[in-house]
Amino acid sequence: MHKLSTLLFSLALSILLSDASVQDFCVGDLTLPAGPAGYSCKSAANVTAADFVFTGLRKAGNTTNIISAAVTPAFDAQYPGLNGLGLSLARLDLAPGGVVPFHTHPGASELLLVVQGTLVAGFVSSFSNQVYVKKLVKGDLMVFPQGLLHFQINGGGRTVVAFASFGSANPGLQITDYALFANDLPSALVEKTTFLDDAQVKKLKSVLGGSG
Amino acid sequence: MHKLSTLLFSLALSILLSDASVQDFCVGDLTLPAGPAGYSCKSAANVTAADFVFTGLRKAGNTTNIISAAVTPAFDAQYPGLNGLGLSLARLDLAPGGVVPFHTHPGASELLLVVQGTLVAGFVSSFSNQVYVKKLVKGDLMVFPQGLLHFQINGGGRTVVAFASFGSANPGLQITDYALFANDLPSALVEKTTFLDDAQVKKLKSVLGGSG
Amino acid sequence: MHKLSTLLFSLALSILLSDASVQDFCVGDLTLPAGPAGYSCKSAANVTAADFVFTGLRKAGNTTNIISAAVTPAFDAQYPGLNGLGLSLARLDLAPGGVVPFHTHPGASELLLVVQGTLVAGFVSSFSNQVYVKKLVKGDLMVFPQGLLHFQINGGGRTVVAFASFGSANPGLQITDYALFANDLPSALVEKTTFLDDAQVKKLKSVLGGSG
Amino acid sequence: MHKLSTLLFSLALSILLSDASVQDFCVGDLTLPAGPAGYSCKSAANVTAADFVFTGLRKAGNTTNIISAAVTPAFDAQYPGLNGLGLSLARLDLAPGGVVPFHTHPGASELLLVVQGTLVAGFVSSFSNQVYVKKLVKGDLMVFPQGLLHFQINGGGRTVVAFASFGSANPGLQITDYALFANDLPSALVEKTTFLDDAQVKKLKSVLGGSG
Amino acid sequence: MHKLSTLLFSLALSILLSDASVQDFCVGDLTLPAGPAGYSCKSAANVTAADFVFTGLRKAGNTTNIISAAVTPAFDAQYPGLNGLGLSLARLDLAPGGVVPFHTHPGASELLLVVQGTLVAGFVSSFSNQVYVKKLVKGDLMVFPQGLLHFQINGGGRTVVAFASFGSANPGLQITDYALFANDLPSALVEKTTFLDDAQVKKLKSVLGGSG
Amino acid sequence: MHKLSTLLFSLALSILLSDASVQDFCVGDLTLPAGPAGYSCKSAANVTAADFVFTGLRKAGNTTNIISAAVTPAFDAQYPGLNGLGLSLARLDLAPGGVVPFHTHPGASELLLVVQGTLVAGFVSSFSNQVYVKKLVKGDLMVFPQGLLHFQINGGGRTVVAFASFGSANPGLQITDYALFANDLPSALVEKTTFLDDAQVKKLKSVLGGSG
Repeated sequence: MHKLSTLLFSLALSILLSDASVQDFCVGDLTLPAGPAGYSCKSAANVTAADFVFTGLRKAGNTTNIISAAVTPAFDAQYPGLNGLGLSLARLDLAPGGVVPFHTHPGASELLLVVQGTLVAGFVSSFSNQVYVKKLVKGDLMVFPQGLLHFQINGGGRTVVAFASFGSANPGLQITDYALFANDLPSALVEKTTFLDDAQVKKLKSVLGGSG
Repeated sequence: MHKLSTLLFSLALSILLSDASVQDFCVGDLTLPAGPAGYSCKSAANVTAADFVFTGLRKAGNTTNIISAAVTPAFDAQYPGLNGLGLSLARLDLAPGGVVPFHTHPGASELLLVVQGTLVAGFVSSFSNQVYVKKLVKGDLMVFPQGLLHFQINGGGRTVVAFASFGSANPGLQITDYALFANDLPSALVEKTTFLDDAQVKKLKSVLGGSG
Repeated sequence: MHKLSTLLFSLALSILLSDASVQDFCVGDLTLPAGPAGYSCKSAANVTAADFVFTGLRKAGNTTNIISAAVTPAFDAQYPGLNGLGLSLARLDLAPGGVVPFHTHPGASELLLVVQGTLVAGFVSSFSNQVYVKKLVKGDLMVFPQGLLHFQINGGGRTVVAFASFGSANPGLQITDYALFANDLPSALVEKTTFLDDAQVKKLKSVLGGSG
Repeated sequence: MHKLSTLLFSLALSILLSDASVQDFCVGDLTLPAGPAGYSCKSAANVTAADFVFTGLRKAGNTTNIISAAVTPAFDAQYPGLNGLGLSLARLDLAPGGVVPFHTHPGASELLLVVQGTLVAGFVSSFSNQVYVKKLVKGDLMVFPQGLLHFQINGGGRTVVAFASFGSANPGLQITDYALFANDLPSALVEKTTFLDDAQVKKLKSVLGGSG
Repeated sequence: MHKLSTLLFSLALSILLSDASVQDFCVGDLTLPAGPAGYSCKSAANVTAADFVFTGLRKAGNTTNIISAAVTPAFDAQYPGLNGLGLSLARLDLAPGGVVPFHTHPGASELLLVVQGTLVAGFVSSFSNQVYVKKLVKGDLMVFPQGLLHFQINGGGRTVVAFASFGSANPGLQITDYALFANDLPSALVEKTTFLDDAQVKKLKSVLGGSG
Repeated sequence: MHKLSTLLFSLALSILLSDASVQDFCVGDLTLPAGPAGYSCKSAANVTAADFVFTGLRKAGNTTNIISAAVTPAFDAQYPGLNGLGLSLARLDLAPGGVVPFHTHPGASELLLVVQGTLVAGFVSSFSNQVYVKKLVKGDLMVFPQGLLHFQINGGGRTVVAFASFGSANPGLQITDYALFANDLPSALVEKTTFLDDAQVKKLKSVLGGSG
């Protein structure tokens, strides 16, 4: 039987000669330049089980803010073990009254799972501005197709915890209000491209830290 | 030489036995159910050169409206010859003062080509709300990465004509104002998810034909 | 202002002429033939918010079995709203002592989220048979690269609830023991292709309902 | 142990409830309309092992023709079991003096394996017209990047047998001479778009069965 | 209100902690090694609006040559802002009598837009050598499926300007005559793989600067 | 005619200005960090025809082992010319009595071609544990869908030679027995996750060089 072991092992060895370069995974090395498909791979020799685990979502995000909500991403930039694997996750915490304002994920669809509380969520289709809204309870899923505007609101009296999974390691997150009001886009330009009144634009720029 | 012709032709025939089912293209049949990758293919036997040509962008769109602008798509739904080929186009006409308000294309990046006039265009990044704005003249290109909020404004005194090309036959188009105000989303919900004032929301709902 | 409404609306209408065929999503119609990219799309006119919601994971799966575990999928076949959107989910319930035996997902990587209890999970790389094992607690994530053998075991005294998300609407699930022993593969063939002893194969075939 | 069997089986059953619609494969049904991603799937209930096997490459193609060569495809149209699986094959037979003239595969790269004889093969890059030519013997591989012009010539005194594999179930095959001369493209048009002399064009049109 | 600003901003900050590595875009750094998916990304901190704009198509290409035509690409190598975004463009100028000879784009389909003059364009299918030819006027579109041979000819008395868009940032361009005659492929090899006469091959090699 | 040459050449030059960075192919440079899409590209200036050719499959693998079989891969790690081109190959040699044990390729479907001898091959579907087995002779093809367990057995009295092609340059290869028994996974863990008896696990660990 020793012979069997030896010989089978030689088969394995012939297959494995170029171990170092074969890729089952590509844990991202954030210190090297990235490419369109993601980060460069950390050398497989330096990869350990810890690279595949992320513990940053154990705790609730801080919801002591006006929207009474927190979004904590576990995308490839936070969790390089996901690099190149085509999926990621984010944790949502919404205190009573909390809301995740209208936003999009430019790079992937989202599948939302409620694990605590009651959530009202919805999205708007692009071709007819049709609104799809539902109340979700613990254990429910709702899917938001790629790139479409959607929102989540705490629909009850207790804190909501939910997890959003994405079909990309880097789905992106563009909160409409931040894109419009939290930068130096001149107010006149914002007004012209949104039909909003000057006072409204200036008020939200002030609130969100924008200028111009 | 006749023999050469015959024999070569027999090579061709052996390759072509299953002509009807081989696909160089897949002209969409809009009467059949679609799938995630696009429309079902029209039978190749019924495809003619006309299927690959689209003449619907010859004329300017009607800009006699408040935004003084028109967007005319040549996506797969309008131009089924594009089905499955991964690209499409839209024509933009902007009269003096015209604007294409903030919008996204959920399914593809956009490459804009100015063919007449002067255009100011910009987009906002998702990760830092950074704004990228430029003035474009005839012959200039600007690219808007997939899913990011962007706008176009006529930057001069004459009518602008531009063409937007997309890396998808069905890029979608979601104009933020329409998504928020041109449907029956309750005003209270819009306010909560946008931080806009009640009066502002109701005004825009009225303007854009929304209710609730 | 009435004029603004009318005119903007005409812009919308010109964009929306081919509504019925434009696709933001493609809710699967399981009664029609599928294609390589998924199910045919249900007519958009018949789609409602309910199509995007799945309530089948509210309850724990039945773990009153020998493995003391249950896997409840929310793939496109169960949840047609996911069709074509490139992601899905499954619920794992593991009673004390429970185990999800070695298995693979042929079509996607998996991102596992523990929401209750303590889980031990691991996978084996293909190029060096390297094992990556970790103990996970509530809120932890672990990723299993596409197609690699992996397992999950309840690592504590209380019931574990976890959710596995996938970067495909149809990731598949192949439990090695079922593939080898729960069908009519002749025992001699199984033995030759696994090096298992005859008695072992026959025992497991008996347990898992296989024949031959 | 009977209980173990029963209980494990119940796990299996809960997973398998929607068997009919889950897809490990998508054997093409050539009688239904195709889509951009390939043919519609034959019902899994009607699929047998025979669907995954192709015996049409057992025999050499007929090389009794002027080019002394035959190309026999096993693409999805001939071998529907490949549908959606992203690969295919073709058999090449070249009698002494045989040649597969310059051609391209629009949809995939090609990996050529020589199993008998000596072959000279080459391709031309698009960006510098650089030529890459090599003599290949039994067991050698050569790769031709997607869409680039390439050729194969019997480089010895005995019949060559080779197999070309492709990274698509429908790579296509466009033989330049057939595209230019085996149809009704007017000679004047061919001349203008190829710089070939009128006599040359007419000679090859005659040889290849073209008109005009 | 200051508090609102502060708190919302803290939400933003928690999302943006890993700014530098998140990718909305990947402007190509042509000084670093590329990969199969394109160029390495320039650091986001160094990206400005100018990276997304290309002005190299403002002017007509030089058509003072025998083909009376010019093709000016705006692919990722010329326009690194396109890197990874899946689309690109080229400008075509054809003086009266001008022609873009038969060619292919190995990596993408092409959508041609005529903005001045009258163009005759066509392509040949791979499976039946079927020719699809049309006359196009200003504003018309024609699509050429990936990898298929096609041509464009000035069909009138005035200069034609057209823009070709592609569903890839690096579609490639292989002009058949250049591939066959503008390099050192031995004439005998060209003749054997094209059926062209020796005199014809040598004439075109001379014209196009080839040798051998 | 000299003028024609010069002028056409100027067309070529204008197209080719950025030669060095345009990519028809991306021959892998195994000394640089890889990314999720494969290896970094070797500079095109250093690429020769030899990069596209692989001669490592000329000779039979060594089958003097217990399984009387050898698998010799020509994946991107062995054959960097394949990098980014989406296909690869492996050679299978099976002496009489030889077997390739149950295994999967996590990253691609496999198309097997028998070039000598008689082979029995089969795979197991994931959704119903259905077995698809066939006897194959010289010239036959069989396809194994991505990620599914499959095996090959020499079905006759003479040595079998077969070639497996894959729709990925890096399909991976996970032999189930090696994954379970050829590493340091504790026996108790293997037993719990496979239902195998302790004696069986320890026997195979001993045979395959595992520990624990």
